[in-house]
Order: sequence, then structure tokens, then C-alpha cells
Amino acid sequence: MLLRHGQSTWNAENLFTGWVDVPLSEQGQEEARKGGQLLAETGLLPDVVHTSLLRRAISTANIALDVADRHWIDVRRSWRLNERHYGALQGKNKKQVRDEFGEEQFMLWRRSYDVPPPPIERGSEFSQDTDPRYADDAPLTECLKDVVARLLPYWESAIVPDLRAGKTVLVAAHGNSLRALVKHLDGISDEAIAGLNIPTGIPLRYDLTEDLKPVTAGGTYLDPEAAKEAAAAVAAQGR
Amino acid sequence: MLLRHGQSTWNAENLFTGWVDVPLSEQGQEEARKGGQLLAETGLLPDVVHTSLLRRAISTANIALDVADRHWIDVRRSWRLNERHYGALQGKNKKQVRDEFGEEQFMLWRRSYDVPPPPIERGSEFSQDTDPRYADDAPLTECLKDVVARLLPYWESAIVPDLRAGKTVLVAAHGNSLRALVKHLDGISDEAIAGLNIPTGIPLRYDLTEDLKPVTAGGTYLDPEAAKEAAAAVAAQGR
Repeated sequence: MLLRHGQSTWNAENLFTGWVDVPLSEQGQEEARKGGQLLAETGLLPDVVHTSLLRRAISTANIALDVADRHWIDVRRSWRLNERHYGALQGKNKKQVRDEFGEEQFMLWRRSYDVPPPPIERGSEFSQDTDPRYADDAPLTECLKDVVARLLPYWESAIVPDLRAGKTVLVAAHGNSLRALVKHLDGISDEAIAGLNIPTGIPLRYDLTEDLKPVTAGGTYLDPEAAKEAAAAVAAQGR
Repeated sequence: MLLRHGQSTWNAENLFTGWVDVPLSEQGQEEARKGGQLLAETGLLPDVVHTSLLRRAISTANIALDVADRHWIDVRRSWRLNERHYGALQGKNKKQVRDEFGEEQFMLWRRSYDVPPPPIERGSEFSQDTDPRYADDAPLTECLKDVVARLLPYWESAIVPDLRAGKTVLVAAHGNSLRALVKHLDGISDEAIAGLNIPTGIPLRYDLTEDLKPVTAGGTYLDPEAAKEAAAAVAAQGR
């Protein structure tokens, strides 16, 4: 089961966030509570949760699991589930970037598969190269292809073993790390992944076959109507 | 480092709680935030946190670690860190129990080392024998001696390896599971442990030698003045 974190304070301000560790907004906390209610109502109760090292995903998991009375399950965390690193764009306003660099470049950085933004300067305000939680793992920028490359080893080594053990797994992460995972699960092409938006706060259920293929391509949102509306809103970001 | 959870809603109502999974009160959440500030101010930053399976300890850890910017560290949980199971007293008002059974019996149940309260009835409102998180592990009642017996295997198998790996370890737990741990660490006698009260929300630091003996007997509270006042208040509970 996949759960994208709710609105952060920087989402609310329309800033590129990436690996900058901002908290959930009030609205984001409310989204997490609703996500937890959906888990409880559908009886889809996780046995283990995997999160990134960023507090908007960690808080989303904490809040949702508390509401679903599953606060006590096993927890695993990895930087490999982090949001895409947005390089030099981190901390910048999305609309300003669009105005400064133009629609084409803006969309290339946001949605191309293999064009990363310019690297962030080491030691600058919004870089993570000296953050103790990452040691030498923090990149200076990433495209979605880079995210897929660093995510898949974690999928294989940490998440798959939990699935093989018969556990119901919750992955609480980010727009782009979840797109990378869905790309892998559903076998989406490098081109088609650009069109996929995962809404925030609505658990996305994947039932997997023995060889870890989705029973239903694209999975099933626990609240399909809300997911449809939310995906449209995500696509419109930066406008 | 040991951290006893802050006030729960049932602490506030003066009820025996034990394994009943009640949330923190507003005051308890504030205590957790202060605990996190103490961690941050003293620079004593945990690398891993161990919690019970009860939300008042889990929430205390989540809140304190978020404030200290250590929300991303490894998490381990075990029922072996749970509060003492208070048997048939769970859900009962402390003052009423004292009035009904008398001061002597009340203090025997609260502070004797090896006299458990009467067992709780299976399947009753405040029992845990059908709670999925415990499988067959939930007791029907416990004395402090029972807590020591079920805690020590976890200390040896889960916490000691983290210490041996050089990690700064935070244990977020309960009045009696922490008393059991401190009894072991400081080699306190079965009789003397009755007089030990651990205050809520104030991190208690233990530096350990190579053979895991405390460098300073009794450890050191990160806020010694507040700890002294709080211990006196805990001792007065039920009066």
C-alpha cells in the first residue's frame, strides 16, 4: 500500500522542496488523519511501514497509523524513499522558476525522465551534503531516472522480503519516489511516466501476484473519487 | 538514555492504566516537546529509539524526536517495554481502589516487588488477551518481578547490541518498565526499588562502561531540578 504525504508548508507556498525537510501543514496533517481513517474503514491494516527520512512522510505515517490503531507496527526508514532531489531549484518558487526559465525548461525539469535540474551548491542553505542522516549518500540533484536507480535496491532488499513474509506493507513516501515505484510495478515506459500523478493522502492499494506483478494495473485507491480530483489538482501545480 | 512518557489522559483521571492503550493528554504532549528540547539543547542526539507498543510511549518518542530533529532515526518496538500489566485494576480509579482495599493492600499492589494484582478477566473491556499486537504474549496481571523477567531478554537481545555498536540509544517507555531497567543497571535490591520514582518527560542519561555498568549510579537527568520536583509528585499519586 502506497501513501503519498499530505501538503507540506512548502507545498502550500509553491516552493520546490526535494530533500529540504519541511513539516506538514495543518492541511497535510488533516490529510494524514483521513488516510488513516480510510485504512481503518477498509480494514487494510499494515503490519510494517517503510518511510523516507523526511518528516513530511514520517509524520504522515505516524498520524495515519495512530488513527488506524496501528501505531505499534514495525518501522523501517531509508533515504532511498526520499523525494527526488531538486538540485539548485530547492527552495525556489515554482512560478518564479517557470517565469525565469520558460514553460519548456520548467516542464523538462519537472517531468522529463532523465534531465536533472542544475546541481545544488555544496554547503548552501538548502543542500543536504553535510546532513548527518545521509553521510555520503546525498546527491546534488536528481532526475526521475536517478530516483528509480536508488529506489530499486531498497525495494528488492527491504520491501520485497516483507511482502514475501506475507506482510501488509505501507510505504509512506513522496510524489516522485512513489512514481518511481509505480513505474517499476506497472512496467510504465520512460515516456508515459511523465503523465502519472499520485494524489496526496489517499492510500493506493496494490495486490501483487507471486512474481510481484500488480493484480490490477495501476492499483486501487481506497477513495477513488477523491483520488481523481486530487490528481487533477497536482497536475495543475506551478500554474 | 531513558525517557518516561508524559501524562496520559488516564494519568490525568487518576486511573490504573497498565496495558490499556490510552493517548497522551495535552500536558503529556507538551512534556514530550520539552523532553525533545532537552535532547537538542544538550546535543545528546539518539541514533536509535526503542519503544513499547503503547501509544503514550510511541507518541512521546515521535514528538520528542521531531523537536530534536531526529525523527528519521531507526525505530524498534517491543511489548517487552510495555508498562506493567495491572491485572483487574486496569481501568479502575486509584483513589477508589485505595478506599475499597485499604492503604496497605493498595501500596502492596503498587509498590511490592512480587505481589501482582488479581488477574484481569479474559475478554473483558480492559484486557489485552485478544489484541492482535500481542498474539499470545499478553499477561493477565504482572508484578514488577514479572516485568524484570520479560524485559531483560529484550535488553540483552535488542538494546545491548545497539550499545555495543556505539549507538546513542533512546528508550521511550513507562514508569515500571523503566524502573525494571534501572533496577538491573544500578543493581538495586528487590526491596529498595520500591522507593524509586522516575519522573515523566525528562530524559535520564546513563553512560555505561565496557561491561555495561553505569559510570554514575542512578544516571543523570538532563534537567535535574525539574526531575526532583516531578519525582516527588509521582510519589504522591493516588493520595
